[in-house]
Amino acid sequence: MRQLIGFTPANMGIFRLAFSHKSSSSEKGYAVQNNERLEYLGDAVLGTIVAEYLFKKYPNSDEGFLTKMRSKIVKRKSLNQIGDKMGLDMLLNEYNQTRLSRSMLGNAVEALVGAVYLEKGYVGTKRFVVNKILRNYVDVHELETVDDNYKSQLLEWCQKNGQTVSYKLLARYKFEKRDRFKVAVMVNGQKVATADDFNKKSAEQMASEKAMQSMGILESEA
Amino acid sequence: MRQLIGFTPANMGIFRLAFSHKSSSSEKGYAVQNNERLEYLGDAVLGTIVAEYLFKKYPNSDEGFLTKMRSKIVKRKSLNQIGDKMGLDMLLNEYNQTRLSRSMLGNAVEALVGAVYLEKGYVGTKRFVVNKILRNYVDVHELETVDDNYKSQLLEWCQKNGQTVSYKLLARYKFEKRDRFKVAVMVNGQKVATADDFNKKSAEQMASEKAMQSMGILESEA
Repeated sequence: MRQLIGFTPANMGIFRLAFSHKSSSSEKGYAVQNNERLEYLGDAVLGTIVAEYLFKKYPNSDEGFLTKMRSKIVKRKSLNQIGDKMGLDMLLNEYNQTRLSRSMLGNAVEALVGAVYLEKGYVGTKRFVVNKILRNYVDVHELETVDDNYKSQLLEWCQKNGQTVSYKLLARYKFEKRDRFKVAVMVNGQKVATADDFNKKSAEQMASEKAMQSMGILESEA
Repeated sequence: MRQLIGFTPANMGIFRLAFSHKSSSSEKGYAVQNNERLEYLGDAVLGTIVAEYLFKKYPNSDEGFLTKMRSKIVKRKSLNQIGDKMGLDMLLNEYNQTRLSRSMLGNAVEALVGAVYLEKGYVGTKRFVVNKILRNYVDVHELETVDDNYKSQLLEWCQKNGQTVSYKLLARYKFEKRDRFKVAVMVNGQKVATADDFNKKSAEQMASEKAMQSMGILESEA
């Protein structure tokens, strides 16, 4: 544990808790003391630390770019990978009898950040996250160019698999005095997903992502 | 300003920026220096402070309750109300030539929190948010009982307006080894919105909320 977090915890219990999955806590009344509360806290703290890190790293980038970069780092799939690289599976195995699922790795990263926060506060946790997680396991520059163009990903998948894809504008309406678009993505002429946004292109992107999720070609990143 | 935030800013420029809407920044190259970057930062910081506040206030509540309470406090509609009660419209009018929209109030709350954070760091901002915002303008206990049952809200609206509402299970599939449900909400037999979730009831709630948004009966809360 010391190796993982860079300091010896004063309250070891809270760290043990971070790696204890709900299904492993058998005692009655113990339910709320599983790692889910720590995940909730760690999710928020991690999101803010990453937000600030990017805010300072990219002083000339706009909010759209920063938001996109942040979500690339803290999305489910990425946290699972980080947890994997950190070797959290070993700790999870130590504290749980259940079979590990991939999403438990990402949850454990969040819970760990929550536990560090309770012990070290914001500044100490920032140091931990930046030095032990971001610097070691996240290639921020590579992420700048990662493809999150779901429209082209879906098109590519459909072409490979002999399916057709098309988009349909279902509605255009006013919302908070702005134009808003509702589009559907159709695979083989069947509506697979819909999405609304203030511009058509972004609604199509969102619908494509949802379509890929519901078709099972994309890991959920919520 | 001193009255609003409880201290005299060392860097007044950053606070002026927090209330300057993009459309008001005329100089070229100044675009990224508008309040949107501060909103991005403030949104994250505020979310974490509220998350921690609730974590400590409700030591026996589970993560689902805490997440719900947090979203009730930081959702768009609630931030607009907070900005209104804080009287931020006066500051916005002072720094902008454009006509104010309701959403500018919530954005200004976020940007203000971002500005305080840059000046005071996490602990100082926590003090500001808890003492100056949460204690004054958020009735946490009232929020515990606020109705976010969109299904019953939609039903009620439809009954009042002579429309029928029904739900349709579109698909049941496996996702990450769990059952997942895709449901549609139909108004007068027409599909208005769909949503996916791991249980049917919650998918129906989500679909109802989306339906109310796209029908314009619910202010967007994203």
